[in-house]
Amino acid sequence: MAANRTCNTSTALLVIDMQNDFLLEDSAIRLDGGLAIVPNVIKAVEDARRRGFVVVWVVREYDPLGRDVELFRRPFYANGNLKPTSKGSKGAEMVDGLVIKPEDYKVVKTRFSAFFDTNLQSFLQGAEIDNLVVVGIQTPNCIRQTVFDAVALDYKSVTVIVDATAAATPDVHAANIYDMKNVGVAAPTLEEWCASSN
Amino acid sequence: MAANRTCNTSTALLVIDMQNDFLLEDSAIRLDGGLAIVPNVIKAVEDARRRGFVVVWVVREYDPLGRDVELFRRPFYANGNLKPTSKGSKGAEMVDGLVIKPEDYKVVKTRFSAFFDTNLQSFLQGAEIDNLVVVGIQTPNCIRQTVFDAVALDYKSVTVIVDATAAATPDVHAANIYDMKNVGVAAPTLEEWCASSN
Repeated sequence: MAANRTCNTSTALLVIDMQNDFLLEDSAIRLDGGLAIVPNVIKAVEDARRRGFVVVWVVREYDPLGRDVELFRRPFYANGNLKPTSKGSKGAEMVDGLVIKPEDYKVVKTRFSAFFDTNLQSFLQGAEIDNLVVVGIQTPNCIRQTVFDAVALDYKSVTVIVDATAAATPDVHAANIYDMKNVGVAAPTLEEWCASSN
Repeated sequence: MAANRTCNTSTALLVIDMQNDFLLEDSAIRLDGGLAIVPNVIKAVEDARRRGFVVVWVVREYDPLGRDVELFRRPFYANGNLKPTSKGSKGAEMVDGLVIKPEDYKVVKTRFSAFFDTNLQSFLQGAEIDNLVVVGIQTPNCIRQTVFDAVALDYKSVTVIVDATAAATPDVHAANIYDMKNVGVAAPTLEEWCASSN
């Protein structure tokens, strides 16, 4: 990787839902295969920093009483036991190896798309971001909804790093990557992306 | 006030921007007249709790680097000195006398309306809230934008407590209350509101 890469401030890397409760093996709501992509997400963040991209951490953080949770997820809160990614809990923190730095930006969402009910679009517009690169979990839900919204919002380029995103099964992952490519989304591997200029 | 008031869970009290930096006398961006309404806002919160209303604290909390601040406010961040209501700062905390309880809900906004770029509407819809009562500052900006959005969103009733809201001058306050009443908003005094059934 060239050391003298030019700073590109028109691109942001969105890192989605890489939180303990979605990843750790002892979590009842872990995503199978999620932990396997952590090393690639770490590399994507490192490479984004080297290129001067803004790193945006998109996370779920819920009301401990569950009042802002999607209806289909509310049973996890009703029994008073699990409360995944409750605001302030260990489960809501980033998984080991991923660290939010002061120059990064954090967006809390309570629905699938990172653009839904958040200030992400205002932030990106204010920072004159035209290009988005997306990593994290999981492909059919938060990744895809965010990506489709980004396409609808006319970002010049939307990139999903295919081996820094994951679904419950490889088939679901592949089917969703296929659909996203069909709406103009780039889906390089991490290696291809790191070798690219953007 | 009747002690046996019925619990009304279809109403929420929105308390807007009652933060140190907007209120305290030594703050460069204080709202003149803001501090004077603090006792009435405290009483409104107490009365809302007695009635079983959800209390929603709407606050501004900005990126310390100022990247999510409205353009017109960015000079306050550019010089590196003021950074009003920066996330995590003392200035972003609620003014003395107002305390967020665990059963309350907190919404962070970066623009005028509490509905803009936030999950407030999702939260209120999920909680089956039909009626909104608004207190805080300041009348022409955050209060009015929130109220007009609430009217546009077809809340059954929208109430602004006229002496628990404030603007830079009494004239500006009155002119905005006048406009809001003209779109069907109720504007009782705190005493009238406390004596009412809703």
